[in-house]
Amino acid sequence: MVSVAFPPVPATPTPAFPGEFSSARVLTAYPGPRNIALGAEMQSMQQAAAVHFFVDYSASLGNYIVDVDGNRYLDVYAQIASLPIGYNHPRIHAAIQDPKNLALLSQRPCLGILPPGDWNDLLEATLAKTQPPGLSEITTLMCGSCANENAFKAVFIWYQTKARGGKPPTEFDLQSCMQNAAPGSPALSILSFAGGFHGRLLGCLSATHSKAIHKVDIPALDWPVAPFPKLQYPLEVHATANAAEEARCLDYVDAVLRRHNVQRAASTEIAGIIVEPIQAEGGDNHASPNFFRELRQIAADHGVAFIVDEVQTGGGSTGKFWAHEHWALSNPPDLVTFSKKMQTGGYYAKPEFRPVETYRIFNTWMGDPAKMLQLQAFVDAVAHDDLLANTTIAGDYLHRGLHLLADEYPGVLSNVRGVGTYLAVDFASPAIRDLAVTRLRAIGLQSGGCGDRSLRFRPALVFQPTHAREALELLEQVCRDLPQ
Amino acid sequence: MVSVAFPPVPATPTPAFPGEFSSARVLTAYPGPRNIALGAEMQSMQQAAAVHFFVDYSASLGNYIVDVDGNRYLDVYAQIASLPIGYNHPRIHAAIQDPKNLALLSQRPCLGILPPGDWNDLLEATLAKTQPPGLSEITTLMCGSCANENAFKAVFIWYQTKARGGKPPTEFDLQSCMQNAAPGSPALSILSFAGGFHGRLLGCLSATHSKAIHKVDIPALDWPVAPFPKLQYPLEVHATANAAEEARCLDYVDAVLRRHNVQRAASTEIAGIIVEPIQAEGGDNHASPNFFRELRQIAADHGVAFIVDEVQTGGGSTGKFWAHEHWALSNPPDLVTFSKKMQTGGYYAKPEFRPVETYRIFNTWMGDPAKMLQLQAFVDAVAHDDLLANTTIAGDYLHRGLHLLADEYPGVLSNVRGVGTYLAVDFASPAIRDLAVTRLRAIGLQSGGCGDRSLRFRPALVFQPTHAREALELLEQVCRDLPQ
Repeated sequence: MVSVAFPPVPATPTPAFPGEFSSARVLTAYPGPRNIALGAEMQSMQQAAAVHFFVDYSASLGNYIVDVDGNRYLDVYAQIASLPIGYNHPRIHAAIQDPKNLALLSQRPCLGILPPGDWNDLLEATLAKTQPPGLSEITTLMCGSCANENAFKAVFIWYQTKARGGKPPTEFDLQSCMQNAAPGSPALSILSFAGGFHGRLLGCLSATHSKAIHKVDIPALDWPVAPFPKLQYPLEVHATANAAEEARCLDYVDAVLRRHNVQRAASTEIAGIIVEPIQAEGGDNHASPNFFRELRQIAADHGVAFIVDEVQTGGGSTGKFWAHEHWALSNPPDLVTFSKKMQTGGYYAKPEFRPVETYRIFNTWMGDPAKMLQLQAFVDAVAHDDLLANTTIAGDYLHRGLHLLADEYPGVLSNVRGVGTYLAVDFASPAIRDLAVTRLRAIGLQSGGCGDRSLRFRPALVFQPTHAREALELLEQVCRDLPQ
Repeated sequence: MVSVAFPPVPATPTPAFPGEFSSARVLTAYPGPRNIALGAEMQSMQQAAAVHFFVDYSASLGNYIVDVDGNRYLDVYAQIASLPIGYNHPRIHAAIQDPKNLALLSQRPCLGILPPGDWNDLLEATLAKTQPPGLSEITTLMCGSCANENAFKAVFIWYQTKARGGKPPTEFDLQSCMQNAAPGSPALSILSFAGGFHGRLLGCLSATHSKAIHKVDIPALDWPVAPFPKLQYPLEVHATANAAEEARCLDYVDAVLRRHNVQRAASTEIAGIIVEPIQAEGGDNHASPNFFRELRQIAADHGVAFIVDEVQTGGGSTGKFWAHEHWALSNPPDLVTFSKKMQTGGYYAKPEFRPVETYRIFNTWMGDPAKMLQLQAFVDAVAHDDLLANTTIAGDYLHRGLHLLADEYPGVLSNVRGVGTYLAVDFASPAIRDLAVTRLRAIGLQSGGCGDRSLRFRPALVFQPTHAREALELLEQVCRDLPQ
């Protein structure tokens, strides 16, 4: 029973996912009996309290994830935004089953010292195709946190090399760093934003400020943090206030850089700034393209690196392959980090961020060619099935539908925002948001929260307007019964 | 032409690797023409200067790695000690080709929230089988650095929770940590050893002290470092001096702990100690089982966690699955970290190291079930093919042969040391070691250096006495022409 008159579902150039289910299907209460039993068993070996449900990955298909009790959910969370083209995509199956890929899937090479013979071809067919202009240096790594930490390392090496006028480290540098002491271990920092999330390893955790429970009790580097704009919605109503808010944050960034790098009045010098195009874990916080253009310019003016963290925004869900393409920068970012949908972690960089010496940005595996095969299937599917256009069309439809729902349930939903299918909406409180996510799951919609009271949409790129319609109808069912 | 009379090759219970080559085979100069061309091409996208050679992974088999020029090397380096059972092992092929594994290979689940239905079974068949006694908690992660950093996080959370008497963090803790400030971001540290290597991310790099070029220019946490014993060889000749050296290092550890945690005379409190059973990257530095038993006791006496980093030593190459099993500890380590041969990173821990709250030890993927399939093949092969016994037999034979070579070429080789196939030998200088590694590669032996002037043996567990004999003969060829 739907009371909002959603508009007709628009056409998309993307073919339907082969053999996909027609809708979600709930057979048991949530969680079902097999899920409960498996969770209890897992708890004896591992923390199982965060598990949504145990998945039948063989039965899952396209946009639908199937649990071990046979419940089928429309998945708009897509493995925390990391599933690029849905479950069991034929192109990925073909790559896994292709006999010529057997060897790459059967042993994990150390890519930095023993790359496979077709490594250059694999890069050309994947990361070179999705390369942001000007960022010719490609580094593959393990995951998003690893990507950000190594990007930080590349920035620190670049910054110190620049400070030395291009000379190698001195003997004193080399000796002091072995004791974690200056000058070899310099007091450098990365400036990050309140509400930002850049991972959970000790370095990137010092640049993360989304939720206290992720940070508390863990020692941190004494790195500065700047405010991120808090925009008011709808944007067109609050244009003046939002512009002032962005100017306030930019002034703050400039003041922090002056304090640290000009006045030398802080414990660290800032070597780089890291920012997400859309703060995801922090609650889907947006800023305008103009904000990012000005931020990029401030970084350049102060001679510090500008790192764009596209771990969650990258891979097409904003309708462009990289979210920072929406900004129309005249000077590209210095480094762009990625992971999630790309399956491999890593970063792109301008050539000056390649250290002269080998083994400075290095680890045992340096990524995984098995994941590059999946990335190739993804990149090919984006081109062949016009997935960016599909994402724009499906996202716009979902976006409009969310506005209609917020108009119908103004006490329940607010702050509809986003671009492409990278959308979010707020509930009245954290508790009501959590309740909504659980009730949605109980009727067949798999979604995820972010920030204090937001629900985020992060479907795969095979999410079509028909799926958007189904998501809207399920969401309305839940809105109807929530406290207004 | 071999002048050392190596003893006859002993028998091993392990069957020959199916279809393996009979020996190394060199067709071109090193590096060959295709390698040179591919390296130049790679250099336009990535740092290629560290590449040994480009590999034909389809043609590689068992202990032999084949390059794109058709050269076949006996591989005693095994992808920096990360290849468990050789190239293209039939059990791994079978796992990759098994249709029931297709779904797990085709999408990467978020294991912390959406594990596959057979996840518990997969743990039972792999990491639960290789579990050190008492360490019932299993956490899967991405790589060795990620394993160590998350082990550190678990230690910090445990330590602060203990300091609070089990209570959750206060509001002040939660607020201050968002600014990277105390008390929420406490001044805690991990004590590590000179010469130790625990990875290259910002936290674990502060515990790494193997080579300055890995650390310089990167900011570090102000964490303390203790000396690691420098043993003299042969051990039986230097027993008294070595015991005194170990006592000196243990006294130092105790003094650092008193200074930091009792006298509070340093900038940080120590929450844990991390140590490798054999310092690998640092130059294959050993200490006695008694040293480790006493170190473990000192940690317990001071109420700090004892972390054993088995990233390189774990997985059987010492003849036991975990190198710390050689110590006969009465009180097990608190945490044991792993990666490399295990294909998945992660750590084992005592139950008290599981945080009460969810999402504190967490990331998007929390490991990768595709790697668990390879781990299962490895664990099954160890049991079925008696690979630990094989490793002991092959290692002892190689060890004896290295002693014979060192006797024959005393100006070239010294300090033969190790256990199982986890062996090393020193050359006269860093330059001569580098020359030896290059010349060995040129005649068909793929090995790796460690420390300043050591060569390390890290073959897969399918390395048999016949391979040891071939390695010895190739090594003798090179020794004969090096400056005595």
